[in-house]
Amino acid sequence: MPNPSLENPLRTIWANNGVVINGWLHLPSSFASEIMAHQGWDSLTLDTQHGPYDFSSAVGMIQAIQTSPTAVVARVAWNDPGTIMKYLDAGVHAIICPMVNTRAECEAFIGACRYPPRGYRSYGPTRAALHFGPEYATGANDFVVTMPMIETAQALENLEQILDVPGVDAIFVGPGDLGQALYGQAQIDRETPGFLLTLERIARTARVKNIGAGIFTNSSAYAKKMIEIGYNFVTISSDARLLASAAKQVLNEIKNDAGQAKSGY
Amino acid sequence: MPNPSLENPLRTIWANNGVVINGWLHLPSSFASEIMAHQGWDSLTLDTQHGPYDFSSAVGMIQAIQTSPTAVVARVAWNDPGTIMKYLDAGVHAIICPMVNTRAECEAFIGACRYPPRGYRSYGPTRAALHFGPEYATGANDFVVTMPMIETAQALENLEQILDVPGVDAIFVGPGDLGQALYGQAQIDRETPGFLLTLERIARTARVKNIGAGIFTNSSAYAKKMIEIGYNFVTISSDARLLASAAKQVLNEIKNDAGQAKSGY
Amino acid sequence: MPNPSLENPLRTIWANNGVVINGWLHLPSSFASEIMAHQGWDSLTLDTQHGPYDFSSAVGMIQAIQTSPTAVVARVAWNDPGTIMKYLDAGVHAIICPMVNTRAECEAFIGACRYPPRGYRSYGPTRAALHFGPEYATGANDFVVTMPMIETAQALENLEQILDVPGVDAIFVGPGDLGQALYGQAQIDRETPGFLLTLERIARTARVKNIGAGIFTNSSAYAKKMIEIGYNFVTISSDARLLASAAKQVLNEIKNDAGQAKSGY
Amino acid sequence: MPNPSLENPLRTIWANNGVVINGWLHLPSSFASEIMAHQGWDSLTLDTQHGPYDFSSAVGMIQAIQTSPTAVVARVAWNDPGTIMKYLDAGVHAIICPMVNTRAECEAFIGACRYPPRGYRSYGPTRAALHFGPEYATGANDFVVTMPMIETAQALENLEQILDVPGVDAIFVGPGDLGQALYGQAQIDRETPGFLLTLERIARTARVKNIGAGIFTNSSAYAKKMIEIGYNFVTISSDARLLASAAKQVLNEIKNDAGQAKSGY
Amino acid sequence: MPNPSLENPLRTIWANNGVVINGWLHLPSSFASEIMAHQGWDSLTLDTQHGPYDFSSAVGMIQAIQTSPTAVVARVAWNDPGTIMKYLDAGVHAIICPMVNTRAECEAFIGACRYPPRGYRSYGPTRAALHFGPEYATGANDFVVTMPMIETAQALENLEQILDVPGVDAIFVGPGDLGQALYGQAQIDRETPGFLLTLERIARTARVKNIGAGIFTNSSAYAKKMIEIGYNFVTISSDARLLASAAKQVLNEIKNDAGQAKSGY
Amino acid sequence: MPNPSLENPLRTIWANNGVVINGWLHLPSSFASEIMAHQGWDSLTLDTQHGPYDFSSAVGMIQAIQTSPTAVVARVAWNDPGTIMKYLDAGVHAIICPMVNTRAECEAFIGACRYPPRGYRSYGPTRAALHFGPEYATGANDFVVTMPMIETAQALENLEQILDVPGVDAIFVGPGDLGQALYGQAQIDRETPGFLLTLERIARTARVKNIGAGIFTNSSAYAKKMIEIGYNFVTISSDARLLASAAKQVLNEIKNDAGQAKSGY
Repeated sequence: MPNPSLENPLRTIWANNGVVINGWLHLPSSFASEIMAHQGWDSLTLDTQHGPYDFSSAVGMIQAIQTSPTAVVARVAWNDPGTIMKYLDAGVHAIICPMVNTRAECEAFIGACRYPPRGYRSYGPTRAALHFGPEYATGANDFVVTMPMIETAQALENLEQILDVPGVDAIFVGPGDLGQALYGQAQIDRETPGFLLTLERIARTARVKNIGAGIFTNSSAYAKKMIEIGYNFVTISSDARLLASAAKQVLNEIKNDAGQAKSGY
Repeated sequence: MPNPSLENPLRTIWANNGVVINGWLHLPSSFASEIMAHQGWDSLTLDTQHGPYDFSSAVGMIQAIQTSPTAVVARVAWNDPGTIMKYLDAGVHAIICPMVNTRAECEAFIGACRYPPRGYRSYGPTRAALHFGPEYATGANDFVVTMPMIETAQALENLEQILDVPGVDAIFVGPGDLGQALYGQAQIDRETPGFLLTLERIARTARVKNIGAGIFTNSSAYAKKMIEIGYNFVTISSDARLLASAAKQVLNEIKNDAGQAKSGY
Repeated sequence: MPNPSLENPLRTIWANNGVVINGWLHLPSSFASEIMAHQGWDSLTLDTQHGPYDFSSAVGMIQAIQTSPTAVVARVAWNDPGTIMKYLDAGVHAIICPMVNTRAECEAFIGACRYPPRGYRSYGPTRAALHFGPEYATGANDFVVTMPMIETAQALENLEQILDVPGVDAIFVGPGDLGQALYGQAQIDRETPGFLLTLERIARTARVKNIGAGIFTNSSAYAKKMIEIGYNFVTISSDARLLASAAKQVLNEIKNDAGQAKSGY
Repeated sequence: MPNPSLENPLRTIWANNGVVINGWLHLPSSFASEIMAHQGWDSLTLDTQHGPYDFSSAVGMIQAIQTSPTAVVARVAWNDPGTIMKYLDAGVHAIICPMVNTRAECEAFIGACRYPPRGYRSYGPTRAALHFGPEYATGANDFVVTMPMIETAQALENLEQILDVPGVDAIFVGPGDLGQALYGQAQIDRETPGFLLTLERIARTARVKNIGAGIFTNSSAYAKKMIEIGYNFVTISSDARLLASAAKQVLNEIKNDAGQAKSGY
Repeated sequence: MPNPSLENPLRTIWANNGVVINGWLHLPSSFASEIMAHQGWDSLTLDTQHGPYDFSSAVGMIQAIQTSPTAVVARVAWNDPGTIMKYLDAGVHAIICPMVNTRAECEAFIGACRYPPRGYRSYGPTRAALHFGPEYATGANDFVVTMPMIETAQALENLEQILDVPGVDAIFVGPGDLGQALYGQAQIDRETPGFLLTLERIARTARVKNIGAGIFTNSSAYAKKMIEIGYNFVTISSDARLLASAAKQVLNEIKNDAGQAKSGY
Repeated sequence: MPNPSLENPLRTIWANNGVVINGWLHLPSSFASEIMAHQGWDSLTLDTQHGPYDFSSAVGMIQAIQTSPTAVVARVAWNDPGTIMKYLDAGVHAIICPMVNTRAECEAFIGACRYPPRGYRSYGPTRAALHFGPEYATGANDFVVTMPMIETAQALENLEQILDVPGVDAIFVGPGDLGQALYGQAQIDRETPGFLLTLERIARTARVKNIGAGIFTNSSAYAKKMIEIGYNFVTISSDARLLASAAKQVLNEIKNDAGQAKSGY
């Protein structure tokens, strides 16, 4: 059953020292999102940066997820206040913002998520107030979770300053981009020891400041490793990859094992 | 690479005594369909009967699949000539028609798939001729594969008459409905011995008349069993179920094994 | 909070001798539907007969409504089994079927809503089973509410036979069409005494057989009158009309009272 | 400027002994329809039979066309009353119905377009009454133009009986299907003398009964020929074909004449 | 009847010392917009900032409104030139731009609405020239109405400089954001005396410079008050709120007065 | 047949000293795009700047085109990195970026198209890697073609600096905006001698640096002239204009030549 109150499940899980298990949505289909919402994810993230869709698909996806108690996160395509505010007004619980590399960029992002005087979010929570109730207007500043991404060499250098911007709730590591920046090649679930140390340092730096640490992974095994080194918001794969790999597995079973699927008749 | 010729992959595979491994589409998303199209299915069926979408989503899904060489099948929602013809004009390789229970119903279905004098399909292959080329107009009657469904007690009784309607290329068994009819409960991958015998009888009856035999299954294991008893068009699961089960599996791994996903920090 | 169980709110209200207050949806917008779902209607009916939309808009509207506990009804455009089954598979609580004029037509409609042996609904509750849970498959026959429409002279004549078809849960009177049939002109909320007597006779005939009685009205006043004469499912206006009349009222206030809205500056 | 009155431009042109020049829409795009609406066509027909779209695209196309005074016609995919009524409620001026082969089929079609007692159209002109005004309800029976198609050998035989059904405003010849029926091959703008005589006989038979005669052509030259032999509703090509041929022509000019488009630099 | 000329109704009303009564669109539905367009609003504003939709819904809404003579305004989500130009090319009469706080921001906004040398709008009025005619290209700079928003403390301070940017046609006050800025809480139709004085000062400052003054309100009563203090562009409520309140009112009538809607039978 | 390899047809044509003949898409319809893709264009450009659509329509259009071997280009609405990266992730071969006026703006544009260390494109080629294969990730930097637009007086001044930004593959001249800037009026296919000299100078400046030169034209005649003066990427007209002119021509033929289309009967 949905829980359209202003208790943000992400904050609740973190308050209980838990880890948010987060699903990732690349399929622009409200029905696919609704299927994902029934599998047990704590939250689902609409990846509007690399997923082949934008805001026009998002409202239906959010509605579909909110037939369940699963929390909804939006990763925006860029640090753009107009777009960030649109997702907030549409009723998401959290925003992941890519490519936050400096304190100023982080301040711009956080400000877009908070009403004055804590920020410069424009007032008009059209769907959010419908779904979460009229108390949304006054509660939103404490409700919305902000997650700037750490995914460049510059962000790594500026990590402390970024984390010290008031209102940062969690950081989110983009391991593909970070690997591209550090090693010249994007790779998910990278096992390079130095990279793992960097990931651990990022998480530790955040957690000691009572800030959450999130990351994208491609497998439950790597996600567990991330939890062990301090991450408390782990994404595993995406609906698109899960679909592809499940189909591939079934096809391997039938094609290989059945002698190229020759009819036995 | 796509193969937009009038050589229907279903006919080619069958001519080589092969089995068509067919995927099933319940997600109304051209991107989900495109992902499925790249996994190795011989054909993909748009299930517009039980999938939560209709013709308005189908054209985009067909276009997406036809960026690959995968064949496209449409299961229509009912034995309705206007709708059947729309899917044909949109460029599908085959039609699966539900609830064909009598010779007359089968004739109505086959007629809707064939231009006169072999049927009463109306002329206007708007997208089909764009995709397959101008020769579609004269080649369509031999190109399009027809698959009436056998899924009721009445259809079982009338099996021979249905199969004897000229132009039937394959039958397609709906095991859910057939089980509901025979045992009062729908169940996929049913192992009841009598049911398996019935399935085998259907396949054998079709194949000896040089008619294909198709069926829906939920697993590669059951699909292999079906191939062994004579089916040469086997569907395994659906994109929706594959997505759900892959997500469920990942979540079980992370939630169970990681001690309820408590943060290690 | 939504209540995605197999307890159909319509049956519950009726079991408590209550009246279902039903809203009517002509706006093909999941957001408009969601707004309606938060106002307090017991159920909302997607009017796909006269509303300018079809199944392709319905799934999003159903999802949006099911973020709330409001029940969802679909009025189909015609007594067409393929379409009726699609709405059921999409997860509606009830079907209103127009133009049911004979016992045979009523049997065809009821049969489309029930799995064998009580009918001939095809198995595949794709979204319904996702939303209501796996028990939907076995519980659907008792869950789904059927409402054939009484709206022609012929239906009036055949009223008893129509009501005696097993599985009829309620009838729904179309007062526009019925008035057109009886008086040569469609009119909603008609006060003609003979018409009111006819409406009362229909309701009484249904209710003594323990069958519900539904009707469309344009005002709460007429709806109350209908409740008094035996109706226990009353529709009031539509989202489209409510929007138009609310806008018209505001415009009258500002345009008339403000001296044609001349600037006071 | 649009002309949202109940004066149907088709009836006006015919009353002045004029010919309706009709465009044909295969592109499911309200913007493409709006472009067509500004070029000077007397009417535009949404071909929902062979065009790759259905009702879900139609409302936007109708709205776009009705920013101009161009009349809107819908060709439905089949003689299906629920669908015919939906297009009428959406505000079209006329319906073309395919595959009308007998008097009974024609009566079913005409009845779906007329309110009782002249037919059995269901009352609820949601968008039509918004666009054309409240007088639509009483004026619709005289406003809506009905056009059954003559496109089979059977229809040719039954031509007189079809034309004698009260309420037939015009017939519409499908030359592709009619040629397929008579010569075993669909061909537009067929010059076979016997075919031309047949076309002339159809037009004459209709016109002497004061019934309009419409036809599909692929060129202005053939359309002029049709006007000469009695047709007063001529369709020329389609948006899809016009687009393709205009692109092809430009490409021929640049590719052939520019020496395979080698850079002169 | 639509009036697709280059006479902008906003300019005409203002030239006659009138007040533009403006409706507000939060429902992403071309049919809802068309209903609004027939109620008598002088203009309708697509609020793409707080409404749950974006450009992809806007074209259909604009087309629907332009079946009527109602003017169309777009409030963009942010002061972003690419987006502003897209709405202009789509054929709106005016742009409301949020969060214009400095002279430089205002210049950027105005420049995006004007072709060189008066600005830097890019040439390509694809739909605008279709709808308004070929003279749009040369007339657009005088046709398009620009409305920067005054809704922050900073904007209040910079009011004179903002108003002095050449090309500002009207300002538009966002009373929610302005109240949030000044009183720490957003509230529409605020009666705080100091706030009313501020609103009056803004209007007066604009009007003496022959610049229009617009504002958002939630009621005709407050709108009249705004007209009295100098506003000549008043928005009243939104389609979403009008729908909700009309439904709520009907439900109160039926639920309260009918004894909790118990069946009288 | 499609050619989903990492050999970019634009680079291949240019390597062979050929000219890319490019079509232009203003119709937001995947079917219209697919029709265009079959006519022989070397590439098709989605003009999301002036076309009445945005990213939400683009994926379907790209999929439709990629059922053919035609290359796909996106003109973005503005020099916005988040949007540019979305089109790249969706699988286009090239980006045309409007209003690039300085070296810094050009660097920002090029950087958005290249992964580090050559730029700052974020990693996540969701659909691109599906379509072009897993090697896309490492090959993308050499695959993607970048085309900044030269269309202002400022850009003309800064032409050399813009061209010298590493990674510029071709420039694209916007003759409408450039004419507006230089002559105060937008005009396509302008014959002013000074303008032609300017166009030639731009092309020559680019080509001597081994950079391509592209331009928009309205006719094959002007396109040939552009090829002669050094352009090797020529756009001719748009789908919208081709449709309009083809319709207009047919209507002129039938309306003028047929005596105002009076019925000959």
